[in-house]
This record gives sequence, C-alpha cells and structure tokens, in this order.
Amino acid sequence: MLSEFDLISHYFLRPDPAGGRVVLGIGDDCALLQPQPGMQLAVSSDMLVEGRHFFAGTDPVGLGHKSLAVNLSDLAAMGAVPLGFTLALALPDADPDWLAGFSAGLLALADRFDCPLVGGDTTRGPLTIAITIFGQIAPGQALRRDGARPGDDIWVSGSLGDARLALAVLRGETITPLDPAQSIIARDRLERPQPRIALGLALRGIASAAIDLSDGLTGDLGHVLARSGCGGTVDVDALPIGVALRCQSLAMQRAWSLAGGDDYELCFTAPATARAAVIHAAASASLQVTRIGSINAEPGLHLRTADGTDFAAPASFDHFQA
Amino acid sequence: MLSEFDLISHYFLRPDPAGGRVVLGIGDDCALLQPQPGMQLAVSSDMLVEGRHFFAGTDPVGLGHKSLAVNLSDLAAMGAVPLGFTLALALPDADPDWLAGFSAGLLALADRFDCPLVGGDTTRGPLTIAITIFGQIAPGQALRRDGARPGDDIWVSGSLGDARLALAVLRGETITPLDPAQSIIARDRLERPQPRIALGLALRGIASAAIDLSDGLTGDLGHVLARSGCGGTVDVDALPIGVALRCQSLAMQRAWSLAGGDDYELCFTAPATARAAVIHAAASASLQVTRIGSINAEPGLHLRTADGTDFAAPASFDHFQA
Repeated sequence: MLSEFDLISHYFLRPDPAGGRVVLGIGDDCALLQPQPGMQLAVSSDMLVEGRHFFAGTDPVGLGHKSLAVNLSDLAAMGAVPLGFTLALALPDADPDWLAGFSAGLLALADRFDCPLVGGDTTRGPLTIAITIFGQIAPGQALRRDGARPGDDIWVSGSLGDARLALAVLRGETITPLDPAQSIIARDRLERPQPRIALGLALRGIASAAIDLSDGLTGDLGHVLARSGCGGTVDVDALPIGVALRCQSLAMQRAWSLAGGDDYELCFTAPATARAAVIHAAASASLQVTRIGSINAEPGLHLRTADGTDFAAPASFDHFQA
Repeated sequence: MLSEFDLISHYFLRPDPAGGRVVLGIGDDCALLQPQPGMQLAVSSDMLVEGRHFFAGTDPVGLGHKSLAVNLSDLAAMGAVPLGFTLALALPDADPDWLAGFSAGLLALADRFDCPLVGGDTTRGPLTIAITIFGQIAPGQALRRDGARPGDDIWVSGSLGDARLALAVLRGETITPLDPAQSIIARDRLERPQPRIALGLALRGIASAAIDLSDGLTGDLGHVLARSGCGGTVDVDALPIGVALRCQSLAMQRAWSLAGGDDYELCFTAPATARAAVIHAAASASLQVTRIGSINAEPGLHLRTADGTDFAAPASFDHFQA
C-alpha cells in the first residue's frame, strides 16, 4: 500500500509551472500563490460523491477531467482567469490504475487551462472528490448573477440536453435507440464537459449576468432572476438542442434541454444593444451562442413555445430533494 | 427535507462582514475576495471523513469547530492572516439538529479568527467535510518547511499528547483511569484544538521553518527535516507533556507526545541567536513554547533521552498505511 506522501508525489506532484505565479506548491502547510497586484480572487468549491454524481466504476480518466471541469466552469461563469486548484480526495483504497487514470484526466485539463494543482489532502474513505479552484479578475469585471436588467437578452452557449441523454442510456431509461455517433457525442458531453473559460473572459464588459448550467437551465436561470430581482421569458423552441438529443421525442428534447443538468454551458444576459458584441465574443471563443429569451420586470421564469403558448417548467435538480 | 439552497441559507448564510474584503459571498458561481495589494495567497485543504477522522455520533458543535481549526492551523504554520474559507459538505441527510450544531461550532471559530465562510457545496453522501482556507502573507514572510538550518533550535508550542490520550479513552484502550478534570482537558484537546494563529504571525521574521502537528511530532518534524535537507536531534525528556497525559506511564507519555497526532501545536525552528525573540513572540501570543532539540547537518531525526541514550522513534500516522 502506498503511503499518503508516496501517493501524492507519484501521481499528483509536478514541477511548479514557470512564471512565478505558484510561489510554493504541494508539500508545505499551505500553497503560496502570487495573484497580480490589485486583482480580486474568485473562489469556488465542488464536491463529487460516488453513487451520487457519478456511478461506481466510472472511467477514472473522465472522472478526473470532469472533477476539474465543473470547477473551471464556475470560474468561466465569473469571467475569471484560472490560477490554480486544490484537491481533497477520499479513496476506499490506493488503486494504482485508478490513480494513474484519474490524475491523468485531471492534470491534462489543468494543463490546458494553465491551472496547476497546488495542494490538497488525501485520505481513506468513500470515494469523494472535493476541488476548490481559484481565479483572478479585475475589480468590477466579474460576471455576477445579480446584474440582469429588464430588457436584457438571455443567451446560452453551445447546446443543451445531450449529457442528460447519456445519463438516460446509463440508467437504462426508455429512449429512441442511439446510433454509435450519437452515443459517443452524448457520452462525451456527460463525461468530458468543456469549461467555457474563453467565452467567460470574452464576455467581460458585455454580459450583465452569467451562471454556468450544472443543474439545468430553468433552475440555474432561476438563480440569476432571483438574485437580479427580475423575471424572464424563454422560448423553448429557440433552445439549442444537443445534436444527439435532436433524434428523441419533442417532449424529451424540451424536458432535457430545460432541466436535464450537467450541461456546463454558460447562460448569460446582455443588453439588446450588445447583440453584435456577444456574437463577436462567442466567435472569438469558437463557440455558438443562442438568444433564447429576455429579462422582464415581473418576477418568475415564464416558458413559451414559438407560437406563444405557455409551457410548464419541468422540475430542476436538487441534491437534497431528488 | 430542506433543499440545498434552504440548507445553506438557513444554517450557513450570514451578512458579509464589513471591511470590504469579501466582495461577494455565498450565492454566486464564485466568491470574490479582495486581498491587500501585493500580498501572497496561502491556501490549504483538509478533508475529514466519518469513521476515519472522527467517530460516528461525534458532537456536531465540536466537529464544526475542529473542521475549521485544522485548516486555520495550517495558516498558523505559514504565518498567514486568515481571509476566508469554503466548505464542501456531504451529508447522509439534512438533520436540522446536526446542522444547527455543526454550523454553530464552525461559525463561532470563524468569527473568532475573522475568517468568513465565503462559499462551498452541499450534497448527499457519506458524512465528509472538506474545507479549503485562504490567508494572505507578504512576499518572503511565509514560515515554510524548507528553511531549517544546522544549528537552529527546534521548538514546540503548548503541550503534546493529551488529544491522543482522549482518543485512547474513546477507543477503550487500557490506560490509568483519568479523574474528571483530566478527562475534560484531554477531550477538549481532541475535540477543540486551538489554532496557533497569533503565534504563527508573531514568529514571522524569527522562525526559520514551521509546521503544524497533525500526525505527530516525529512524522511532522520529519517533513521539515526532509524539505530542509538536514537532520535533527530531539530530547524526548524535554517534550512538553500534556497535563492529563502526565499521570500515565513514562512509555505512554513518550509515545503519545512523539507520535500521538491531533496536537495542532506549531513545531518550528529558529536560530539560537533568536531565543529571546522566540520567547517574546510566544508571550505576545499568550502561549508557552519549549525548546526540544536542535537541527544538524546529518540527515534523519535522532531521539535522545535526557541522559544521552538513543531512543527509538515510535511510528507516525499515515492515512493509507494505518
């Protein structure tokens, strides 16, 4: 059995990156980071529990990727530049194959976003992954949830619902069978979400509010509306449906794009005068964005179909109610 | 059942503290903190798992205290000023009594050290508490593990071994029975460790290296020696034995002060010329410090009794080997 120190140094320890941002990495009581002078620190924590957020036996490479991706997605939603992250990991045992896969998936994504692992903790316990990520952002530039104003457009990046479709396959739910390409696309959306860091950065000074979609569009957009003290109307027929989900029933397309969860796209608002700027920002991040509705003064989220009919919102996901 | 949002807002949400350091607290994708310009960020993560770090049924108030205390202790060992922390919490259910107790213990200690909860995550799962703490420190002032030099004194704060004694009581190990006062003292050391923040701050510019004692003196001091590339000699008869442990056998006193774990004292090194400064720093923090040995050039930790006899080091604690 590897000791805790051997485990960390073998699987997770790397030379500190050049550039001086990480003054002191893994191996002391604390890591030391040097943010740029005057910058604000953006901080987010997420915890993934086996059997709750992922199935037992999930591919460890994908799990390492996803564990960091969901945290990077929170930085993206603030428009923050990644600085680094810590990992607290409870493991039932120190299985070398699992650790090699998990650390490979985790650190490959960390490299892609120049976001080094700077510290953490490992212990024996039920498989649980807790990551805290730090980013930096200039004062006043953060894309908060409370900045939406009546008249703003509501936008969403990429596409919605394919991750929920992949979950349906894993759970054995009744769906129209997927062809191999659809299976791969859906599975990839569930297991390898791509944090929209470049889009978040490009939207600074343009978007009025932003959130990342982890629990589903209706629930997450609801947080923006509540924090901003306003309401919104969304055209369910304008939603960018995932390419794999498009072959399922219309009811399923609507339910899973509205409340499927695990999309890790950005939902954001921007003044109607900023439409060209939004599209330019998205193009600079090589992403599609879709205008799905607008903010208004009356509280609550109203869903409408393209012909103007009211549409009842499906339930969103809550860890203590599901 | 409470929803995740209700749970957070009811038990953990507080008005953001005055002073502007927390620009944005709980409720957005990230928290935003404003460190003082030019300061370095000190970051540490610890994870506590039920059945591993604490017994099922542990008093939630004490558990809330200890969960944050072990993280504050890491900041203390760096000489950093607390800025804030995040909490990722997996709970088997949202028991109101447990949550009320846990949050009370956690937030009372947070208040004492002006270290607000700024964000986190709650989910259902086996009881697991992952805290990441942030502090700030001026460049070059951190008390790192790698600064010990031959000729330096080795010091330890407070007293050692009483937490291990309390663990022995809980485990039903054979010991000399404790009187009620000893029981309370020992239990308090195990369940309510007092982070040595004031001492860490006072030792900036004086100590050459520091670590907090979580796994036991020999193991933790060993990390300082390894990182500093030197060795050390400790007089086991000079160790500050906890007042409750003093009534146990000499063998038990030595074993548990050397390798009991859960002491959360600071072990630090300082040049022999700094003895008066060390004692003055400790007095300013209202703490006793004890000189227990010295650093030398030959690698490894050597234990001696007062008469100069070699003493065999007991095993330290490792989460993946114990």
